[in-house]
Amino acid sequence: MKVHGAVYSTASQRVFACLYEKQLEFELVPIDMIGAGAHKKEPFISLNPFGQVPAFEDGDLTLFESRAINLYIAHAYADKGTQLVYDGKKMATVSVWMEVEAHQFGPVALKLVWELVLNPTLGMTTDAAVVQEAAAKLGQVLDIYEARLGQSKYLGGDDFTLVDLHHLPFIQSLMGSQVKKLFDSRPRVSAWCTQILARPAWLKVVAMQVNN
Amino acid sequence: MKVHGAVYSTASQRVFACLYEKQLEFELVPIDMIGAGAHKKEPFISLNPFGQVPAFEDGDLTLFESRAINLYIAHAYADKGTQLVYDGKKMATVSVWMEVEAHQFGPVALKLVWELVLNPTLGMTTDAAVVQEAAAKLGQVLDIYEARLGQSKYLGGDDFTLVDLHHLPFIQSLMGSQVKKLFDSRPRVSAWCTQILARPAWLKVVAMQVNN
Repeated sequence: MKVHGAVYSTASQRVFACLYEKQLEFELVPIDMIGAGAHKKEPFISLNPFGQVPAFEDGDLTLFESRAINLYIAHAYADKGTQLVYDGKKMATVSVWMEVEAHQFGPVALKLVWELVLNPTLGMTTDAAVVQEAAAKLGQVLDIYEARLGQSKYLGGDDFTLVDLHHLPFIQSLMGSQVKKLFDSRPRVSAWCTQILARPAWLKVVAMQVNN
Repeated sequence: MKVHGAVYSTASQRVFACLYEKQLEFELVPIDMIGAGAHKKEPFISLNPFGQVPAFEDGDLTLFESRAINLYIAHAYADKGTQLVYDGKKMATVSVWMEVEAHQFGPVALKLVWELVLNPTLGMTTDAAVVQEAAAKLGQVLDIYEARLGQSKYLGGDDFTLVDLHHLPFIQSLMGSQVKKLFDSRPRVSAWCTQILARPAWLKVVAMQVNN
């Protein structure tokens, strides 16, 4: 199995986390996005015509879009490592909360990651008005998460699933920013973050960044 | 089965289309969004705390997020009507293109639906700069679709699946706007649109709007 991506890419991290949870070996093929813009050129765009990392190969199968890659891995290697998907009605609820991550949490978290983490690193300015609006929206999403985590141990149900895993890269990134307090001030959200950020599979992803 | 939604809501239409493809009977529970803002109040927000239509009930199971609802319906009623999902590697590719619809096509199409269809209807102005930027992005996505439809009959493979179905509400809406030409000018995209818009299940969804 090959992941074409970058250790600093949050979407790539999502796939690394899944592969480590499933205890699968993989080769990272580094894509030099910042220096060479390699994600917008051949040979990468033959793997993903949209020019975004990661792309994934398993034998003759080529996939892109991190959440779809993870669904494939979780189903195809069901008997390995952590069970991350289920069947029937239990999976239906997991799917709902996977969509919540993708459409409610993800866009607002990504905006904050750019403004508060990436822009400062790249020497660009942070737009305080954008931060304020996005932080308010994130607070509303986390209020709903706080209620949800009173009903079940994890967001998708009583087991850790792809739902929780897909949140990890943005949460890790935002924990070093001023919006950390939005997570810390909600007791169940805070406990959930602490728990999922401490998973051995995720710590391996963090170590990849440190060692880079 | 109950769909809590509105006939003019594109996300609700996505679920209606799936139910008609599966030849399943359902009850529409109308949510008065425009007049009463009923989607932001009880009892609706007990079905979906994010306050967005549709919500869905099947016996004791309650779901929200249209794409998750459709995944459940397609799997749970696999033996009814049109097959919309598959297994294994074939499903992995379907999942990739479902994510493409959700993240590449959907946000840009929704922006154009607001600017070109909903704002004029609601007496609000259209922002020409937003339209120009979104139309350019939509053109880039449709270029990739044009190439993809040279490799397979439908976007997710050689069969009609949830991928194509999930595109229908936005395409239907944009076909009455100035960006229709972006679809018409690409031969394979144009033929694909003509084919999926003519499906009997989709024509039933269109009829719901006309009869409303």
